[in-house]
Amino acid sequence: MNGIRVLLAILLATGSVLGQTPTTPDERVRQIRADPRYQRAVEFINSDYPRFVRELVELTEIPAPPFGEQERGAAYLAMLRELALTNPERDAEGNVMGVRRGTGGPLLAVAAHLDTVFPEGTDVTVRRNGTQLFAPGIGDDTAGLVTLLAVIRAMDAAGIQTSSDILFVGDVGEEGSGDLRGMKHLFGEGRYRNAIRAFISIEGGRQADITNAALGSRRYRVTFRGPGGHSYSAFGIVSPAFAIGNAIRKISELEVPEFPKTTFNVGVIGGGTSVNSIPFESWMEVDLRSEDNDVLDELSIDFERLMQEAATEENETRRTGQGSIEVELEVIGERPSGETDLTSPIVQRTAAVFRSFGIEPTFSRSSTDSNIPISLGIPAVTIDRGGLGGRSHSLEEWVDVNREETVKGIQVVLTTILALAGVGGNSNIP
Amino acid sequence: MNGIRVLLAILLATGSVLGQTPTTPDERVRQIRADPRYQRAVEFINSDYPRFVRELVELTEIPAPPFGEQERGAAYLAMLRELALTNPERDAEGNVMGVRRGTGGPLLAVAAHLDTVFPEGTDVTVRRNGTQLFAPGIGDDTAGLVTLLAVIRAMDAAGIQTSSDILFVGDVGEEGSGDLRGMKHLFGEGRYRNAIRAFISIEGGRQADITNAALGSRRYRVTFRGPGGHSYSAFGIVSPAFAIGNAIRKISELEVPEFPKTTFNVGVIGGGTSVNSIPFESWMEVDLRSEDNDVLDELSIDFERLMQEAATEENETRRTGQGSIEVELEVIGERPSGETDLTSPIVQRTAAVFRSFGIEPTFSRSSTDSNIPISLGIPAVTIDRGGLGGRSHSLEEWVDVNREETVKGIQVVLTTILALAGVGGNSNIP
Repeated sequence: MNGIRVLLAILLATGSVLGQTPTTPDERVRQIRADPRYQRAVEFINSDYPRFVRELVELTEIPAPPFGEQERGAAYLAMLRELALTNPERDAEGNVMGVRRGTGGPLLAVAAHLDTVFPEGTDVTVRRNGTQLFAPGIGDDTAGLVTLLAVIRAMDAAGIQTSSDILFVGDVGEEGSGDLRGMKHLFGEGRYRNAIRAFISIEGGRQADITNAALGSRRYRVTFRGPGGHSYSAFGIVSPAFAIGNAIRKISELEVPEFPKTTFNVGVIGGGTSVNSIPFESWMEVDLRSEDNDVLDELSIDFERLMQEAATEENETRRTGQGSIEVELEVIGERPSGETDLTSPIVQRTAAVFRSFGIEPTFSRSSTDSNIPISLGIPAVTIDRGGLGGRSHSLEEWVDVNREETVKGIQVVLTTILALAGVGGNSNIP
Repeated sequence: MNGIRVLLAILLATGSVLGQTPTTPDERVRQIRADPRYQRAVEFINSDYPRFVRELVELTEIPAPPFGEQERGAAYLAMLRELALTNPERDAEGNVMGVRRGTGGPLLAVAAHLDTVFPEGTDVTVRRNGTQLFAPGIGDDTAGLVTLLAVIRAMDAAGIQTSSDILFVGDVGEEGSGDLRGMKHLFGEGRYRNAIRAFISIEGGRQADITNAALGSRRYRVTFRGPGGHSYSAFGIVSPAFAIGNAIRKISELEVPEFPKTTFNVGVIGGGTSVNSIPFESWMEVDLRSEDNDVLDELSIDFERLMQEAATEENETRRTGQGSIEVELEVIGERPSGETDLTSPIVQRTAAVFRSFGIEPTFSRSSTDSNIPISLGIPAVTIDRGGLGGRSHSLEEWVDVNREETVKGIQVVLTTILALAGVGGNSNIP
């Protein structure tokens, strides 16, 4: 993989992939921002602001639980169809997308994800408090999806033609058990799999980080099984509930390094049939992550050992005459890690855009859609759509749609896309 | 309560409530079993055996999860309507019932419960292996329901007229979170609430125990709540999952006396939205029982303290800046205890029936539909329908429909009912 990545980094550095004229990243951004059409695009974004808010509310209120993105995907595809895109479509995995034609330059893909972490049945009604909007998933990543629409409309309104073709994607399966299935399909089987030469993922947070490194994670579904029985008459037999309680306690006592940052989480638990039955099954889903693959491997080994211990200890504590506790570990997620070099054009140009807006970028490692292209050696970064917001993945998730901050955020995304895609035709933006 | 019970016990002892002629319990049973009509009834039970098996399979395969007994209730009511019962009906709670008229003696109620412990979606298809039938709920208490039908048909076929009216009931909410709601309605608001003078519950097990004492239980839903957040970026904040793991571990380490028998169970667990989110809520349902009300009270106090400790310990272990763990304890079940005196006619006559079939009865305390009448001072026992079976409340639940054992079990139930209801008209059964 590294060999491929280095080769592509060289191609990018020569400007032959995504730009046309070699120049410094800062100069490239300065020229873009000085162009009259760019100015018109920014003015359009400001005038288009009410539509951004309307679409944000509209899409947020269409539930998109993991593996249940169909309805939101259909609505987003309908929105893409209203724009001047080539081949608007939904692929076999559920990603929706369309190409904005450039002058034939190499393909840049820009994606935001359709799915949220919230299960079916979660109330996704948007509540307003001034410019603050509350709803599960409104920031992560509905705001990202809507930002793409605003950017496309602004480019169209201003008549900007890029050098690169740009594939805009609303993708599935970014969160949790989705396990990046949208990206795995796009880069593994999708029709553009061999064409995409650079990738940007737009997430829903504040603009500061440029995620150039993929955070590896390993996810498990752990199931403890036992004989089950009546809570009173069978009292004293082994219980999967007690085994999982012990197992969770052991996880909670894991010691992990602060650097490289390494984390563990018990995300979902379940099992049991009724209050007066000893369950025959208790299960949980566990997320392990580390900036360092070796540390993640060690953590996984420790974790798997602790799960076996929890089963063994339950079998030693209570009766096993009707059956013992057995534990099954299923890997339900495996996200590859990797890095886009800090010196690569994609990172350098994105950083130059951020600086031009007074944002001193930090470079970070995270688990996002970019994990897949990064692991394949395709230059990729994840940035945020900007604006204010917080409490992602909680029911109290919110964004502030303050006009000035919102417009600035969209402008940063637009500028980043233009810095990577270049501008062809008789544009004076190099 | 005790005063009422003693008064009724005296009424029963004089034979004026459920019998007509004072005599010893053993003599009463001997006379019943010697009657030609009784003989005919037993012969009919044997000839009716294939229908018992057919109805057992048919009813078992209609799911009846807690609070979801409607479909099975409707089917059972249709079966009751085929018999010569007065007022076949479904009450406001969902119990289905009908009265078999006697010669005006005091009302005896005989019930089996419609509900199972198994949640919606459980596969209730009956699997056969010779005379062994496997399916969730087949013994507890579908076999009890079908036994009532066999008994009614046998009495009708043999032309037996009892002294007492007999109310046959298929009731709801016996299991778990049903919290005896069927019985609470029958004895609290039902149209027969002031008329029922004695009660027998027919459960699905082997015949040996006569449950004359009500086992008290207390059931809780325990919910740990916290701020929730992203598994990686918010790592280090308090987690409801870790709190509940610790809480379950504490429950599993409770020390309870063997005598009076005292038990605890974590029946169902749940909570969390996705593998990569720190949950904002984790919950469990817990069942505490004791033969002794004081021990149950002490156990409840210990339990509630441990739940608070688990919340506090999580708040002391991880960051609380975005919010602390709070725990809510909701009592979701409270089953009263009490006893029907061992010297009461209902217990004495039932024991005489068992002995007449060579079964040396044991007297036990359990949590059954009889808890409600017992707690109201109404003489009540719970007995089993007989036959072989096991693994109640597990997915491996089974009964053996061996003809001889099955017929004998139904015969014991019939005889018990006749011993309590007495026989009127020109019967020579006293």
